[in-house]
Amino acid sequence: MALIVQKYGGTSVGTLERIENVAEKLIGWRERGHQMVVVVSAMSGETDRLIGLAKGITPRPNPRELDVLLATGEQVTIALLCIALEKRGCPARSYTGSQVRILTDNAFNKARIQAIEAAAMQADLDAGRIVVVAGFQGVDEDGNITTLGRGGSDTTGVALAAALKADECQIYTDVDGVYTTDPRVVSEARRLDRITFEEMLEMASAGSKVLQIRSVEFAGKHNVPLRVLSTFQEGQGTLITFEEALEAEQMEKALISGIAFNRDEAKLTILGVPDRPGIAYSILGPVADANIEVDMIIQNIGRDGTTDFTFTVHRNDYERALDILRDQASRLGAREVAGDNKIAKISLVGIGMRSHAGVASKMFQVLAKESINIRMISTSEIKISVVVDEKYLELGVRALHEAFELDKAA
Amino acid sequence: MALIVQKYGGTSVGTLERIENVAEKLIGWRERGHQMVVVVSAMSGETDRLIGLAKGITPRPNPRELDVLLATGEQVTIALLCIALEKRGCPARSYTGSQVRILTDNAFNKARIQAIEAAAMQADLDAGRIVVVAGFQGVDEDGNITTLGRGGSDTTGVALAAALKADECQIYTDVDGVYTTDPRVVSEARRLDRITFEEMLEMASAGSKVLQIRSVEFAGKHNVPLRVLSTFQEGQGTLITFEEALEAEQMEKALISGIAFNRDEAKLTILGVPDRPGIAYSILGPVADANIEVDMIIQNIGRDGTTDFTFTVHRNDYERALDILRDQASRLGAREVAGDNKIAKISLVGIGMRSHAGVASKMFQVLAKESINIRMISTSEIKISVVVDEKYLELGVRALHEAFELDKAA
Repeated sequence: MALIVQKYGGTSVGTLERIENVAEKLIGWRERGHQMVVVVSAMSGETDRLIGLAKGITPRPNPRELDVLLATGEQVTIALLCIALEKRGCPARSYTGSQVRILTDNAFNKARIQAIEAAAMQADLDAGRIVVVAGFQGVDEDGNITTLGRGGSDTTGVALAAALKADECQIYTDVDGVYTTDPRVVSEARRLDRITFEEMLEMASAGSKVLQIRSVEFAGKHNVPLRVLSTFQEGQGTLITFEEALEAEQMEKALISGIAFNRDEAKLTILGVPDRPGIAYSILGPVADANIEVDMIIQNIGRDGTTDFTFTVHRNDYERALDILRDQASRLGAREVAGDNKIAKISLVGIGMRSHAGVASKMFQVLAKESINIRMISTSEIKISVVVDEKYLELGVRALHEAFELDKAA
Repeated sequence: MALIVQKYGGTSVGTLERIENVAEKLIGWRERGHQMVVVVSAMSGETDRLIGLAKGITPRPNPRELDVLLATGEQVTIALLCIALEKRGCPARSYTGSQVRILTDNAFNKARIQAIEAAAMQADLDAGRIVVVAGFQGVDEDGNITTLGRGGSDTTGVALAAALKADECQIYTDVDGVYTTDPRVVSEARRLDRITFEEMLEMASAGSKVLQIRSVEFAGKHNVPLRVLSTFQEGQGTLITFEEALEAEQMEKALISGIAFNRDEAKLTILGVPDRPGIAYSILGPVADANIEVDMIIQNIGRDGTTDFTFTVHRNDYERALDILRDQASRLGAREVAGDNKIAKISLVGIGMRSHAGVASKMFQVLAKESINIRMISTSEIKISVVVDEKYLELGVRALHEAFELDKAA
């Protein structure tokens, strides 16, 4: 008997029929003797519908109230799934984030989980019930409803698995695993049987939508085996595992495991800012205070006592960041502020990179051959990212996928 | 400066535009120096949509989970209203039933309020915020979400007014007050400026949809002045007040204040049941245990040691009640069980009845003249109700409205 946490995304619970299918699946697992905890997202389209209502009133809804609004989406799904389970004679109990007590900080719209009370859920499991938890939401210590930000249901699943010491956390979605890159862009993309946490983390942070980065971090940190599977197809999916486990199985390490990309970012530059200590903090401090996450950061070598400073943020935060930057520019005596939200980021990811040089130069060569201009570069131990004009995204990804022979099994 | 609780029903918040209108009204009240608490229902159609989802899975959804589902309707409205208030620079804070802590019993789908924690709301009011509360919902002592049953938002409004010792509780709806009867059935129906709590209670219990009976009870018991007004029209509406207040104003008491009716009931009869002490309890005990409310009860005089026993329940509970009754019938050795859900109840209400005889006989005479057969009769000090075949409902109400001259001001 294992304790399994499963998470079903919005598409997997997108209709009543699909919710009933999930109920059937869960009952199957339970009948095979497993204790089941299931985390569900809002029915597909529901979160967008709710955001549409809020945006129908104002483009910048009050963050606390937006979370009160959005949290209803998952609450509908947990109720419907429990109704479907109970109809089949299977005892079940739904929990909102507040009811579990998924305690978060109070950063509305992008809260972080701080603690989970597992006792009530464990008692339900021991009493033979299936526990159904609303993903994506929590509660701060003042009792305010919070949400974890888009995709936060994955994090809820992993955090519950960690809190309950589950044997596996299974993320059910509309794709059957993690691919070398998005198959909608490269038809030769190949499903990976396994990938390391480190790589998955880089893939997620670089734009792979399969798993939310925080859920991967959380799983890696708490040693929760994580598996991505399809709700609609049979299969083993992709297991996210530890490097040692991979090596133990004598798998040959590929140079590159995958190519991630995203068009969710925007680039901001402050030009001609006085080049003195603390300048980075003066620029980015107010951005961080506004709860805007910064991804890539580049500072050019100073000239004439001034320097240029470029960074990227999520496109949703672009205008807010631009406002803040303009404000800072006049305060710091900078020359100019420029921005561009028609950019895309392409990243190569692979633990094989560690022991092989030359991946970066090959990447630049491939892009140069296609006449794609590189706007920004950043590297980590197992990842190289470049920013290019958005229009070159597909071309770049396809050329790199072919050049690194990702269509061929390692 | 007064503390005013306002309640807006589903039609009043049925669109984003209407929600913004409510926000404007509230800001107007606040600018005139009042402390404002507002209770809102789900946007019109939303509760039905949610019930439709549940019923799409099973005709008898698990009651606990149904409440989890339905509670999302009001949660959406509180968030949107606060977003509209905050957009206008008006500080506001939303509360779900759990967040206020509107403590109820655990009778899912028809819970009763036991206590309300007023401290947090009072602190918000004192800080200048408008407090926006989800109607219709509460939380039991185990933290389960409960709902008060359809129309429960009125009760929430009155209970909050009582807990906060508000100066007035205003119920905004799509009609501009309490009428002598439903104007859709009798075009000559007249709006009442005032009505006593006693009469309003009888009107509500007899089927007037303007106010939910429990809200009127609650208001009467806690001395909360209650006013029904239209969201869409200016006007003073109808004040529900105490008999002494009416008398103090030297208003002439009308014989009859109004005619209520409903087609929400169904009639059940158990025939040939042994006529012995405790038989009523044997029949109705299991019905009450199933949380089915019984309205009228009639027991015929026994014959041959057996008796017939008839009662009415809400139509929604008809099938469940019939099942229970059939079960009891075989257990008690009764001859037969009969049921009819094509009935309607017509009630005359008026405190003037107390001092005047002959209202009942005049009512029977009017119905007889129209050849309407009376199936059941029940009377209270200020009300006479009859059950007739549903098809005679409009005819009966119109004839009575005219005969008792309700179109003419008292």
